[in-house]
Amino acid sequence: MKWPEKIIIKEVGPRDGLQNEKRIVPTDVKIDWINALSNTGLSYIEATSFVNPKWIPQLGDAMEVVKGIERNPDVTYAALVPNKRGLESALEANIDEVSVFMSASESHNQNNINKSIADTYPVLREVIEEAIRNGKTVRGYVSTVFGCPYEGDVPFEQALRVCDQLFDYGIHELSLGDTIGVASPMQVEQFLEVALKRYDKSKVALHFHDTRGMALANIVKSLEYGIVTFDASLGGLGGCPYAPGASGNVATDDLVHMLDKMGIETGIDAEKLMQASLIIQNSLQTPLPSHQMAVFNASK
Amino acid sequence: MKWPEKIIIKEVGPRDGLQNEKRIVPTDVKIDWINALSNTGLSYIEATSFVNPKWIPQLGDAMEVVKGIERNPDVTYAALVPNKRGLESALEANIDEVSVFMSASESHNQNNINKSIADTYPVLREVIEEAIRNGKTVRGYVSTVFGCPYEGDVPFEQALRVCDQLFDYGIHELSLGDTIGVASPMQVEQFLEVALKRYDKSKVALHFHDTRGMALANIVKSLEYGIVTFDASLGGLGGCPYAPGASGNVATDDLVHMLDKMGIETGIDAEKLMQASLIIQNSLQTPLPSHQMAVFNASK
Repeated sequence: MKWPEKIIIKEVGPRDGLQNEKRIVPTDVKIDWINALSNTGLSYIEATSFVNPKWIPQLGDAMEVVKGIERNPDVTYAALVPNKRGLESALEANIDEVSVFMSASESHNQNNINKSIADTYPVLREVIEEAIRNGKTVRGYVSTVFGCPYEGDVPFEQALRVCDQLFDYGIHELSLGDTIGVASPMQVEQFLEVALKRYDKSKVALHFHDTRGMALANIVKSLEYGIVTFDASLGGLGGCPYAPGASGNVATDDLVHMLDKMGIETGIDAEKLMQASLIIQNSLQTPLPSHQMAVFNASK
Repeated sequence: MKWPEKIIIKEVGPRDGLQNEKRIVPTDVKIDWINALSNTGLSYIEATSFVNPKWIPQLGDAMEVVKGIERNPDVTYAALVPNKRGLESALEANIDEVSVFMSASESHNQNNINKSIADTYPVLREVIEEAIRNGKTVRGYVSTVFGCPYEGDVPFEQALRVCDQLFDYGIHELSLGDTIGVASPMQVEQFLEVALKRYDKSKVALHFHDTRGMALANIVKSLEYGIVTFDASLGGLGGCPYAPGASGNVATDDLVHMLDKMGIETGIDAEKLMQASLIIQNSLQTPLPSHQMAVFNASK
């Protein structure tokens, strides 16, 4: 088959990874870590989330982190914002891009952001439009696209209605989230067959969790559909809130390793990535779950 | 794409898994475990290896194990044999099928069986011909097809020469081994493009290790080429002798889970598989590395 020549990996470890870690990482370690990530060749780092620290204390230092890091001009720094108040903070921090999020399934949306899907739309619309007025691009995450911890399977049309809305409001990129790591390569194929009739593939990113070990297989299947943007978390940081002890996001280092083996360019230096992994592994004082780190830790 | 309807999983945990575990599992536990595996719906179990216990003390009880298990008539029980003496034992134990093995790379063959590739051929020829004379089918494992721990990349033609010889001697199935877990989906694709011009796909099995997390992705790629037989080890038992601490064979339970999600039949009952995993996990007193077991262990 014809494989893509170059893939964009969006590092979400400092946000999606850390928010699912029990231990709170000190602000100076986060800053050191993001600075290290900034010099690996990554072009995109989701640095934090401007959510209420009451809900996610792990990211309560969002402002200090974004103001504390050294910005590499070759890197886009993003932050997740749940509402207008979060956006104001993100703008104050002068983040490059903001991300908004909601779920494809009603009950996950309700549990995660305490609102119905219908009530979430106007909130996100306001955030997206206001961000754009302020010259920012907006990324839209849709969670539970491939399955919901409460509802099980989510009808494709239901997920696509949410995606449609976010595109209508002005997001420039959609990130399709397999929040609980249940997507199979066949489901990815079936979903992309439908979704890529509606959206340009250059505007669609895939966000896989490796809970059941299928993330790299799902990425390979997505590559076959011409998807070139994937979210990943260094070392597989984060775990799954619905299956404690299970794997989190697909590991950036595992993905870079596989793409390197396939001669597909990522622009990312695997050795520098490993050094960045050690910063966060040493701080958490627990082995990171990626395969690359397992091999590395075993070799010591 | 057109996915196969049914996949055959060959359980190699009692041989490939256990031979790479440091701890020696008691004979009665092995027998209990194989009996449990025999009732999961698996159609093939590689029960042990008749090698010199000096080299693999973990499998020093091969005869007791094979004579001790309850044979399910729906299951083919196989054993690895390195030479004529091993074959004699396997025949005495009345195993259903014997497996022979050698490497695609000279230095791995030399390190693993203490002979050159050229000197291995006559030994395996004798074993294969003698097994067939005794009414047994013979499976041929070729190791390091996708990479060698000593030599790195192995030229496809070199691997295929070894495969050609084993087919010439009379093996009825070839198992292509990614011994150190370095194959990428692109390499699998490139290899199968060549190999399936020479061999009927129904006679080719793939044997992936998950050292770098790519095993399921490689299996999905192989499915696309019409491969329907895969080796796997329950719970991902075994680890990698060249990267201690890293994953071993692709986990049977992870593979069954993925295929179940895809609606591809394996005939295997995931719940019974889990019960069988617990027998060996309890004996080893260490968590098995599969994703399914990580989720299960975390839920307890």
